Amino acid sequence: MAKNIISRSKDYPQWYLDVIKAGDLAEHSPVRGCMIIKPQGYAVWERIQQDLDRRFKETGHVNAYFPLFIPKSFLAKEAAHVEGFAMECAIVTHSGLEPDGEGGLKPKGKLEEELIVRPTSETIIGHSFANWVQSWRDLPLLINQWANIVRWEMRTRLFLRTMEFLWQEGHTAHETAEEADRETRRMLDIYAEFAEDVLAIPVIKGEKTESERFAGADHTYTIEAMMQDGKALQAGTSHNLGQNFSKAFNIQFQTRDQGLEYAYTTSWGVSTRLIGGLIMTHSDDEGLILPPKVAPIVVAIVPIYRKDAEKEKVLSYARELLVALCGEDQVEKAEKGLGSKEVVSILLEDGRGVVLDLRDTARPSDKFFHWEQRGVPIRIEVGPRDVEGGKAMVVTRHDRAKVLTEKMAIDANWLYAKLASQQEILLQRAREYRIARTFKVDSFDELKTKIEDGGFFLMHWDGSPETEEKLKECKASIRCIPEAERVETAEGFISTREPGKDPVSGKDSPGRVIVARSY
Amino acid sequence: MAKNIISRSKDYPQWYLDVIKAGDLAEHSPVRGCMIIKPQGYAVWERIQQDLDRRFKETGHVNAYFPLFIPKSFLAKEAAHVEGFAMECAIVTHSGLEPDGEGGLKPKGKLEEELIVRPTSETIIGHSFANWVQSWRDLPLLINQWANIVRWEMRTRLFLRTMEFLWQEGHTAHETAEEADRETRRMLDIYAEFAEDVLAIPVIKGEKTESERFAGADHTYTIEAMMQDGKALQAGTSHNLGQNFSKAFNIQFQTRDQGLEYAYTTSWGVSTRLIGGLIMTHSDDEGLILPPKVAPIVVAIVPIYRKDAEKEKVLSYARELLVALCGEDQVEKAEKGLGSKEVVSILLEDGRGVVLDLRDTARPSDKFFHWEQRGVPIRIEVGPRDVEGGKAMVVTRHDRAKVLTEKMAIDANWLYAKLASQQEILLQRAREYRIARTFKVDSFDELKTKIEDGGFFLMHWDGSPETEEKLKECKASIRCIPEAERVETAEGFISTREPGKDPVSGKDSPGRVIVARSY
Repeated sequence: MAKNIISRSKDYPQWYLDVIKAGDLAEHSPVRGCMIIKPQGYAVWERIQQDLDRRFKETGHVNAYFPLFIPKSFLAKEAAHVEGFAMECAIVTHSGLEPDGEGGLKPKGKLEEELIVRPTSETIIGHSFANWVQSWRDLPLLINQWANIVRWEMRTRLFLRTMEFLWQEGHTAHETAEEADRETRRMLDIYAEFAEDVLAIPVIKGEKTESERFAGADHTYTIEAMMQDGKALQAGTSHNLGQNFSKAFNIQFQTRDQGLEYAYTTSWGVSTRLIGGLIMTHSDDEGLILPPKVAPIVVAIVPIYRKDAEKEKVLSYARELLVALCGEDQVEKAEKGLGSKEVVSILLEDGRGVVLDLRDTARPSDKFFHWEQRGVPIRIEVGPRDVEGGKAMVVTRHDRAKVLTEKMAIDANWLYAKLASQQEILLQRAREYRIARTFKVDSFDELKTKIEDGGFFLMHWDGSPETEEKLKECKASIRCIPEAERVETAEGFISTREPGKDPVSGKDSPGRVIVARSY
Repeated sequence: MAKNIISRSKDYPQWYLDVIKAGDLAEHSPVRGCMIIKPQGYAVWERIQQDLDRRFKETGHVNAYFPLFIPKSFLAKEAAHVEGFAMECAIVTHSGLEPDGEGGLKPKGKLEEELIVRPTSETIIGHSFANWVQSWRDLPLLINQWANIVRWEMRTRLFLRTMEFLWQEGHTAHETAEEADRETRRMLDIYAEFAEDVLAIPVIKGEKTESERFAGADHTYTIEAMMQDGKALQAGTSHNLGQNFSKAFNIQFQTRDQGLEYAYTTSWGVSTRLIGGLIMTHSDDEGLILPPKVAPIVVAIVPIYRKDAEKEKVLSYARELLVALCGEDQVEKAEKGLGSKEVVSILLEDGRGVVLDLRDTARPSDKFFHWEQRGVPIRIEVGPRDVEGGKAMVVTRHDRAKVLTEKMAIDANWLYAKLASQQEILLQRAREYRIARTFKVDSFDELKTKIEDGGFFLMHWDGSPETEEKLKECKASIRCIPEAERVETAEGFISTREPGKDPVSGKDSPGRVIVARSY
């Protein structure tokens, strides 16, 4: 175990913070609850953005940008919405600063109407949609926005819950309820595919109960992932808003038969919270593990030498490896580049990096440590003996296995195959982990005992808010009503549709839901 | 002239707004001074972002993200800085809303320290740099941030000056004054290359006078472009901040010889204002003209038919053209796609679009108009006669020229050549326009008369703020002290370095500066 990272078994919350610090991903800012996303962390977010943005565009969505500020009166137009967000708002009341007479500054001009810093944009976008939509011909309207969001949170945690965070919010308007329902589910599917294919995070799709719905939605769908401590993380949500916002903002359109109807709208979002999910799904006691598809750097080559005579040979050999992976042109370009002279850094065509660590100020073991803690999927170590033997030591991050590899075998194709395999293994590992900690539970006492060790619990539910409320006794909640008819558990597949008895109330239940503690 | 766009000669400011509206780029929002960037406008911003981001990364910069909110006390730490920005700040004073007893809502919890919505991030980033920089080994630190910015402006204008805007802000820290100077100039060069190569906007590089400097900078460098009304637009700035912010925020490092020194910092930025510059450089009385490199859609194919018998032939012919430009695979994929069925939309490898306009609800002439006003560089019209003759009518947006072209000639290579040529012509045209309206002026009265028609004026300046102040009499200002030794004017090249007399004060002048009215 690395000495700057506590083990997961000793202190899981502290381990999470240690991994972020050692991986140089983010840090707390002087503004309470706000984080600074450092270059290593932001690069992961950029990879998430690129991939999701492509998926949104392929399904006909276009990006736009709406104001950061929302007039206070807008928020109040949808009753459930304002109730959900009123306490989380940051409020701009003044513009300009002037001397306060004591050597400091005080706010100057009071605004006529206070402005809310957007906690989400249904209201300000709803206002625009009302102008943009006149006829059924203007529908569907398929908009996405990449933006920063502010929610005044009391307890914050890097990436998972911060006062300001980055996200995307999709907002769409449709002609029919069916179309809006299809869109809501389609985007949930895209989130689930993205989570599994790119983040290697297996997720359970399902619907939220009424009490867990987005404020103002008719239906909220979610993808729920299991973290390594057995807690659930809500990784993305998709909301069918019905006609609630179109009525509040008057998004009306002329129908095909010359009638007038309110549009059906949806919204859906994922945020920088996903980076917290990545960390808690894959990383180990040595630090960050990143699925290759979101790793900003995929290979770090570390030369090992002691004497000057060795140095030249080893460096030239390491450079040959770099050429084998990236091509001579790219290497020459990087060497001529204006960046750091100590780390030769090359971007592959897909934007991921390969580095050669030439730092004279760090020992090889420090360099191993450095790249390992940053979650780089593949490390290649080359020393004098490797030069002699025409080999290189290849270390894979996910299992820390060392394999002495023929230099001849190492090229771009080899690299892509290694990365694809590591990506697949991480998903498989996370899936197996979740299955092993998913249980059927038929008694409330059993739930109370077992949930202390974490896990997902397939439990019968009578559909009442009273049962949901009772779950708070063991700090649990209904994460979702699963979409799948069967969910794989440690004891095999369990039906979610067979009727039974709610173990909390003793009443009839139409099927099982997922109960867990959550972030 | 299109009837929804007034001509430039009649009302230039209204023409600008008309072009934005007809091009569907942006609109005013219900929040005073904030704009909504519509999908067509945002797509242009995405192309700007992609290209600049690549240039920043190629020169060793990495992206990060810092908080939206800045503690009030931070702003006050650099005296010139706070003076420059105090009046433009939006101030968050409360969190949470509660019922006001009259059916409305009022702000609830008063914050201990007010938060400023960032008008720029030197202070909050300076605070982080102080933590990140310990030794000369940590330098240079080369960070960029893509973010939204708020400045409380009284007079706003879409894209050119809005209360909230999008931008990138580079922030770097260096070991020596020379290195910081080199960085400041390097980024100005990158902005200038980008403006000319990508936006087709010719710019004059130079230094700002003291009174026009960024609040807190030792030197501010700028690129100045001439709009079609002869006014200047400051299109990008790069600031050498010296040790001002490192002293205010204690960014100290251990030097190579074990001493302790303050770092030298820089900052540089361009914003969504560039889109305003694009519009006012290239567009004409028919509407938007976009340089092909930033055009989200580069080709619109419009089929023309009246009878059903014609329809089938023409559509199949139009599809063949689409295949010739984009390849069969791409066309099939787009046809199967889930987007709008009425416009077949294909993304080229570089992310730019090609569309086939199949809308049954619009006449061909309306479609011509539609794509023309959106600034699409190439329109291809195909009717029954073209099908017979194996031809197509190709219309280039920059000159509205129609050329009957052999269908056989139309393929991807043809397209890229056409686009490259149009890109080059737009730059050349803008450059010639600027040269024709750049004049040497040696009398203040002459300046006062001539500037009524717009233009750049090469004028001697004694270096005093008094002369600068006097220029306000004709609503002009010194745009920059040009970097180039000679500037091309309507009367040939004029030296900027030959000494002379300041025509305002009559005092000695070391050389000529650029005087103009500006946005």
